[in-house]
Amino acid sequence: MSLTNATPQEVARAARMGSRKLAILSTDARNAALTAMHAGLSSAKDAILAANKLDLEAANKAAENGKLSQSLVKRLDLGKPSKYEDMLQGILDVRELEDPIGKINLRTILDDGLILERKTCPIGVLLIIFEARPEVIANIASLAIKSGNAAILKGGKESTESFKAISSVISSALESTDVPSDCLQLVQTHDVISDLLKLDQYIDLVIPRGGNKLVRTVKDSTAIPVLGHADGICSIYLRADCPIPIAVRVIVDAKTSYPAGCNAVETLLVDENALQTVLPAVAEALLVRGVSLRCDAASKAALSSALEKHSAVLLQDATEADFSTEFLNLIIAIKTIPTQPTPETAADIAISHINDHSSHHTDAILTLDRALATRFQDGVDSSSVYWNTSTRMADGQRYGFGTEVGISTNKIHSRGPVGLEGLTIYRWLIHGEGQVSTDYGAGGGKKFRHESVPVEEGMVRNAEELELLRKFRNR
Amino acid sequence: MSLTNATPQEVARAARMGSRKLAILSTDARNAALTAMHAGLSSAKDAILAANKLDLEAANKAAENGKLSQSLVKRLDLGKPSKYEDMLQGILDVRELEDPIGKINLRTILDDGLILERKTCPIGVLLIIFEARPEVIANIASLAIKSGNAAILKGGKESTESFKAISSVISSALESTDVPSDCLQLVQTHDVISDLLKLDQYIDLVIPRGGNKLVRTVKDSTAIPVLGHADGICSIYLRADCPIPIAVRVIVDAKTSYPAGCNAVETLLVDENALQTVLPAVAEALLVRGVSLRCDAASKAALSSALEKHSAVLLQDATEADFSTEFLNLIIAIKTIPTQPTPETAADIAISHINDHSSHHTDAILTLDRALATRFQDGVDSSSVYWNTSTRMADGQRYGFGTEVGISTNKIHSRGPVGLEGLTIYRWLIHGEGQVSTDYGAGGGKKFRHESVPVEEGMVRNAEELELLRKFRNR
Repeated sequence: MSLTNATPQEVARAARMGSRKLAILSTDARNAALTAMHAGLSSAKDAILAANKLDLEAANKAAENGKLSQSLVKRLDLGKPSKYEDMLQGILDVRELEDPIGKINLRTILDDGLILERKTCPIGVLLIIFEARPEVIANIASLAIKSGNAAILKGGKESTESFKAISSVISSALESTDVPSDCLQLVQTHDVISDLLKLDQYIDLVIPRGGNKLVRTVKDSTAIPVLGHADGICSIYLRADCPIPIAVRVIVDAKTSYPAGCNAVETLLVDENALQTVLPAVAEALLVRGVSLRCDAASKAALSSALEKHSAVLLQDATEADFSTEFLNLIIAIKTIPTQPTPETAADIAISHINDHSSHHTDAILTLDRALATRFQDGVDSSSVYWNTSTRMADGQRYGFGTEVGISTNKIHSRGPVGLEGLTIYRWLIHGEGQVSTDYGAGGGKKFRHESVPVEEGMVRNAEELELLRKFRNR
Repeated sequence: MSLTNATPQEVARAARMGSRKLAILSTDARNAALTAMHAGLSSAKDAILAANKLDLEAANKAAENGKLSQSLVKRLDLGKPSKYEDMLQGILDVRELEDPIGKINLRTILDDGLILERKTCPIGVLLIIFEARPEVIANIASLAIKSGNAAILKGGKESTESFKAISSVISSALESTDVPSDCLQLVQTHDVISDLLKLDQYIDLVIPRGGNKLVRTVKDSTAIPVLGHADGICSIYLRADCPIPIAVRVIVDAKTSYPAGCNAVETLLVDENALQTVLPAVAEALLVRGVSLRCDAASKAALSSALEKHSAVLLQDATEADFSTEFLNLIIAIKTIPTQPTPETAADIAISHINDHSSHHTDAILTLDRALATRFQDGVDSSSVYWNTSTRMADGQRYGFGTEVGISTNKIHSRGPVGLEGLTIYRWLIHGEGQVSTDYGAGGGKKFRHESVPVEEGMVRNAEELELLRKFRNR
């Protein structure tokens, strides 16, 4: 990890060169680097917390002057109970994950002695732009090294001192390993970003971790592919057949367990015939937790008559804009889905609303009707679509990825929570014996066999396949 | 398929709306649309060839005035023997491919009654910009419909009349099917492209099929992801242990079987100790086929003494620029890899040259040394890396994809030949019973199981897994 006065061009080129060495290191060598990082950060805890204190002092001053929010100041603090230990544990967790690199995930016999394979490999060089939390640097550095990618990191300016301290520790730690220290580069000034975004000959993927505005700005100013970790306008569609305890539990969790999260619910769609049956209990549970309900006319009318008076006076009127807003706060917009000839046509209205208004992040349906749930899950064009569970489940750890780079609302490459797999690509390999394309042309006489064979010997389906693989391996 | 005077905004919005209906059509409905397209184009052959003749006449005039190349005129001609039939057969071939949509390709038991699945789905709306060949429209339309994607197509201006005729036939054919005709939109004027490239709310992926310049221009002017089908600077690294017949056959095929192809070889790297042993036979075989050899000093000196005099006089001197040039013609640049302490260090020099100079398309090594081949295949950062076969193998049909959209040199999403799979993405589904995120938090008491289970019942590994899947399916 370097902290030089190198130009963006030099930084990116060095990362590219380092990435080639990193890409061919063994699993053990990459894991050993994570072990070294962990050891370095463990023993440097005091020094890093001292640097973090400088950031905190500056942030507190800025907060006093109203230039920074208190929530941001809190996110800066590495000294909070267990935060530093969680950061350290995260490095070990990533180390223990299965190596995503060098896996054969497709094998085809093109012809005798002509085998096509698809083998996973790192993407190359990542540019990761993120905001305040200083522990993210250790997280991202672990993911990058584990997946064999070089990374150029740009953190928020509020955590400069913490970043500098952490990066110099990681830098020393890597010196004793096979990972070239150029593979992790920290850039500190914001103005280098626009230069880096032009260097698509060196940088393969940009990952902006932050709000919609950051993602939009990055997308509009680069030809490098962007893995968009955007905001979330998530919806839940509540059907009348959903048992009240499930509706209450799921919607309360989705709205209140972490309202600032991108996977928190913002819009509740309610079937007209659930307005007086299921909705009142949900509304009551939300109101007691301090959630503002912004209701359309039908839901407000229904709730006004169903709720106790002291609750009903808290109801607010929704505007059209509320159904396209990411509140990131204890507010939810409620819209009624009018009664329809069939449940299917009602569901289609909900699906259309979501496809038109949501940010294609995570949406859910609450119902006991399996066929309707399937219709919803197939029709909603979002990265995650759930049946009878909370939108807050959209998370790499919960999906079993160990950790995540973020949640992608892209339509290509990697969608939803992005773990190690999203940081890999593949190359196509052919192992031949001198065969050429014209052998298989009009006058060539040969024909491709195109036999798909298992990638693991244990999965071979018959003696002939086994023989082919053995022959392939032994020649 | 529409040919209206709609604005780019209207075109893109209509395609988006159509794509939602197309995305949930059954396999049979999508296949039926391909059958209808095939039937329509079969019976309209005469009318389409008449329209094609108009394009050809205009092109011939332009060619006479030196405004168009003869090779482009040839590519326009749909009346060439078997060309129209090949186009028709291509539609049926795509129809017969396995449906890439709706496949579960990952399944994890998060907890009892909480199942995570990853299911393939279409990307949404594609914008495909291509050059002269009019039959490509049928090819692309088939791939788009088969993969459930709407497509906005922009063809080259030289084939306007052919496109119009083909598109109106496809449009009528689709009317009798479940595929909304808005799903295929043809735009004809070049100036709408820049407007379409701004509409990332409607268009999910741009596929420019053409030269580097087109790809570069598109990438620089849009925030929509671009699947780059760029040019190819492909290399072959020839080792001294390669049997002469293999070296001759592979290099002749790679250079001469289709010199204008992006997978044709442009640079030959030769180990110093192969200069007088293997290279002369290769050089002779290339020279008799009219290939110009642009040699570095060492290879020229070696060949000058090894070749007959009448051949040696044909040798040319390579400039540095020749090693970064896509000739697309009967020219090859030859560079010597100097003798090194070990074969591995020599291979590393070849690998570095390729990583610095190639277009990351397709490169090959010719050797009998398996370990060295693996080193090369792991070290070269290209979409396809071969051992003992021709770079011309880089092709969707040869890989067994049936057909291809093109060859991607991108580092994300889809790399190498792109078939139906490259036109799909996935969404994450959870099927729950009311579980919420806080159940699994610090105070929640529940723990995720994160058990990966097979996606096909036939692949289930034990009775417990089978029980879990049955329970899941029957509830």
